[in-house]
Amino acid sequence: MGGKNLSNISIAVVRRLPKYHRYLKDLLDKEVYRISSKELGKLIGFTASQIRQDLNCFGGFGQQGYGYNVEELYKEISRILGLNKNYNIIIIGAGNLGQAIANYTGFGKLGFELLALFDIDPRLIGMKIKGIPVLNMDKLDEFISEHGVDIAIVCAPKDFAQEITDKLNKKNVRGIWNFAPADLNVAEGIIVENVNLSESLLTLSYLLNEKELLSG
Amino acid sequence: MGGKNLSNISIAVVRRLPKYHRYLKDLLDKEVYRISSKELGKLIGFTASQIRQDLNCFGGFGQQGYGYNVEELYKEISRILGLNKNYNIIIIGAGNLGQAIANYTGFGKLGFELLALFDIDPRLIGMKIKGIPVLNMDKLDEFISEHGVDIAIVCAPKDFAQEITDKLNKKNVRGIWNFAPADLNVAEGIIVENVNLSESLLTLSYLLNEKELLSG
Repeated sequence: MGGKNLSNISIAVVRRLPKYHRYLKDLLDKEVYRISSKELGKLIGFTASQIRQDLNCFGGFGQQGYGYNVEELYKEISRILGLNKNYNIIIIGAGNLGQAIANYTGFGKLGFELLALFDIDPRLIGMKIKGIPVLNMDKLDEFISEHGVDIAIVCAPKDFAQEITDKLNKKNVRGIWNFAPADLNVAEGIIVENVNLSESLLTLSYLLNEKELLSG
Repeated sequence: MGGKNLSNISIAVVRRLPKYHRYLKDLLDKEVYRISSKELGKLIGFTASQIRQDLNCFGGFGQQGYGYNVEELYKEISRILGLNKNYNIIIIGAGNLGQAIANYTGFGKLGFELLALFDIDPRLIGMKIKGIPVLNMDKLDEFISEHGVDIAIVCAPKDFAQEITDKLNKKNVRGIWNFAPADLNVAEGIIVENVNLSESLLTLSYLLNEKELLSG
């Protein structure tokens, strides 16, 4: 299977994969080893045909009438998501949000190893969060050169986000997970994934008013 | 314009509206009052035709050759996003993530008024975050009845998320902004917007490996 038929994955399918990954892990934890697209769909809230269509992108795992092999599917989706590798990560901005991410243990289990946090606030520099040090921002360049960093998580205020990105652009960072409400200009080859909380909240406020709006 | 032609907005368009909203606000702050779809597209990173198509969903604001009236468009998108109203919000879970959200001043400006945070941890109960109290979780029911809450922000660990939702299901909460990595079962009429950070990070790790994967 590995790597076949992978040329046409849309970003919409990619964004559904982590959800499959999570549900398949839950099934394995419950010792469920085989599941039909119908049952899986009911669990996740997708239609069975959506599921068959999504999973067919990766060469198809189900056997007609037998359902999916949960373990095999979980492993293959893990591989597609790049979870067969380890990633060195750092967090830039050690305020509440940066600390919240540092405290979340789930990422470590998936292979994302947090090496350090960085900040400019002297009250934060020198702290340890789950044993991980908060370093002075002026050590960033040196640290990246020395340790190698795959993913930088930007948890800094909007006004500092591009300045930080300019620093990252000059180093061998491969990806930026950006929580600042700003669209970053990155060097070629660096991939940015934005988590824009305001956009999510505004989507919710839209949905709260949708009925009224559409009938208006 | 208000409310016309609004029956066919896809969720994909809705999710782009907050971005328009943010860029139009920036333009107004810079005293730019008129912009072409081409210029706006260049700014946001969408094609001009994408922009025309999106904004046509709401009845169309541009005049051929004159571009868009930034202020009018900003106001109309604000209205569509429900930002002409105010929302009472609470945060359930006053750990780092809950505090990060409470500390973010941007939401208040958009009309989301934080009334209280709730937690079960005695070390957090009684604290104030930007003047907003952290209350004991056992006061939740009473508080909602007394003050009215439009949106509850769930920042609790996964294992508590459904239990909290069950409480909210019995009250007149209209929306849940859910940060727990769990799909919540809500009562009819309650709208959930999920922010699943793991899904976002896994999308990034996919994208970091996409080239290799597709050429494999």
